[in-house]
Amino acid sequence: MADQTSGEAGGEVVRPRRGRPGHDQPAVLAAAIDLFNRKGYDATSIGDIAEALGVTKSAVYHHVASKEQLLAEALDEALVELEATVAHAVGADGSAYERLRGVVRRSVEVLVEHQPAVTLLLRVHGNSETERDALRRRRAIDTQLAALVRRATEEGALRGDLDPDLVSRLLFGMVNSLVEWFRSTGPVSPEQLAAAVAAISFEGLTAP
Amino acid sequence: MADQTSGEAGGEVVRPRRGRPGHDQPAVLAAAIDLFNRKGYDATSIGDIAEALGVTKSAVYHHVASKEQLLAEALDEALVELEATVAHAVGADGSAYERLRGVVRRSVEVLVEHQPAVTLLLRVHGNSETERDALRRRRAIDTQLAALVRRATEEGALRGDLDPDLVSRLLFGMVNSLVEWFRSTGPVSPEQLAAAVAAISFEGLTAP
Repeated sequence: MADQTSGEAGGEVVRPRRGRPGHDQPAVLAAAIDLFNRKGYDATSIGDIAEALGVTKSAVYHHVASKEQLLAEALDEALVELEATVAHAVGADGSAYERLRGVVRRSVEVLVEHQPAVTLLLRVHGNSETERDALRRRRAIDTQLAALVRRATEEGALRGDLDPDLVSRLLFGMVNSLVEWFRSTGPVSPEQLAAAVAAISFEGLTAP
Repeated sequence: MADQTSGEAGGEVVRPRRGRPGHDQPAVLAAAIDLFNRKGYDATSIGDIAEALGVTKSAVYHHVASKEQLLAEALDEALVELEATVAHAVGADGSAYERLRGVVRRSVEVLVEHQPAVTLLLRVHGNSETERDALRRRRAIDTQLAALVRRATEEGALRGDLDPDLVSRLLFGMVNSLVEWFRSTGPVSPEQLAAAVAAISFEGLTAP
């Protein structure tokens, strides 16, 4: 089924219609991500995605060439924002410590904003070239974050008795864990969550 | 294929044979957990488990009645140890703060000791009664841990500006995240890992 195209009727300009709900490309991608996360990528078919949207399979194929294209777009959605966040932290002015605190807080916000796509990214295990490409991009992000932790340690701003690579794993392990339980409709706002993650990891839980 | 049974031959006592490698119940369970984690539970068949062990399907069925039984045993392996760890922390003497620090460190060690089973547990989404039962047991553990965080906060030992439930989620989110990357064959020992998790979460990363 083709989208409605623009044209003229009775002298009046007819604007392009956006299509029925669940019938544009972002809706198809969102439905696919939801199913990939709930059922698993392998167990999800284009037919399942069509059914979830209440449209035909050919309506889905109007927007995407394949299931793997949806996976690639979903992983890209998560990675583009995370890469931009890390690139900003690496290139910004200021101490490594301040930039690390900033990237921790901003990462939390990106995870909340793109929670379904990031959930999918964090479950990828390299079963296809698309997944392996996403894992390579994740590793590049992790390497940059670990380097920033190392710089902040060398500055003397972070305690020196812990291995920077281990610190980076645990710090961003805490950040990533929130995709499993955080609900943006709950009592905690993304800003409060970001502040809590930074407070625990930098100042610690023990009362001053 | 039945296991060798004990008996007497030529006046000598023949001890029960343990079966060929990959042919006893723990080996079947370990192979199943590995496949469930790598391929997903739904995508794994008893035939896959038999193939991984180099035995016939009937040899696997000699040890287990069904794939779901293997899932239940795997989840139970993870849960029994975690439940014991938390029950010990709840019932022990001492301040809530000391017991919380203890349960954080011991949880890290349990996760490393039972890493494949815990990885499986953390990926369970409630798709069957077996999975929903495991999720109920996980929630009971989380509730006890959150109560311990609350007690430590009320004691004044933990900072008072963070919600105890949020703290508990993030603290054990950091702990749980290690199943995704920790390798016990690497340079960091489980004890060093446990100490690092406790140091980051209680004292924080910022240099004193």
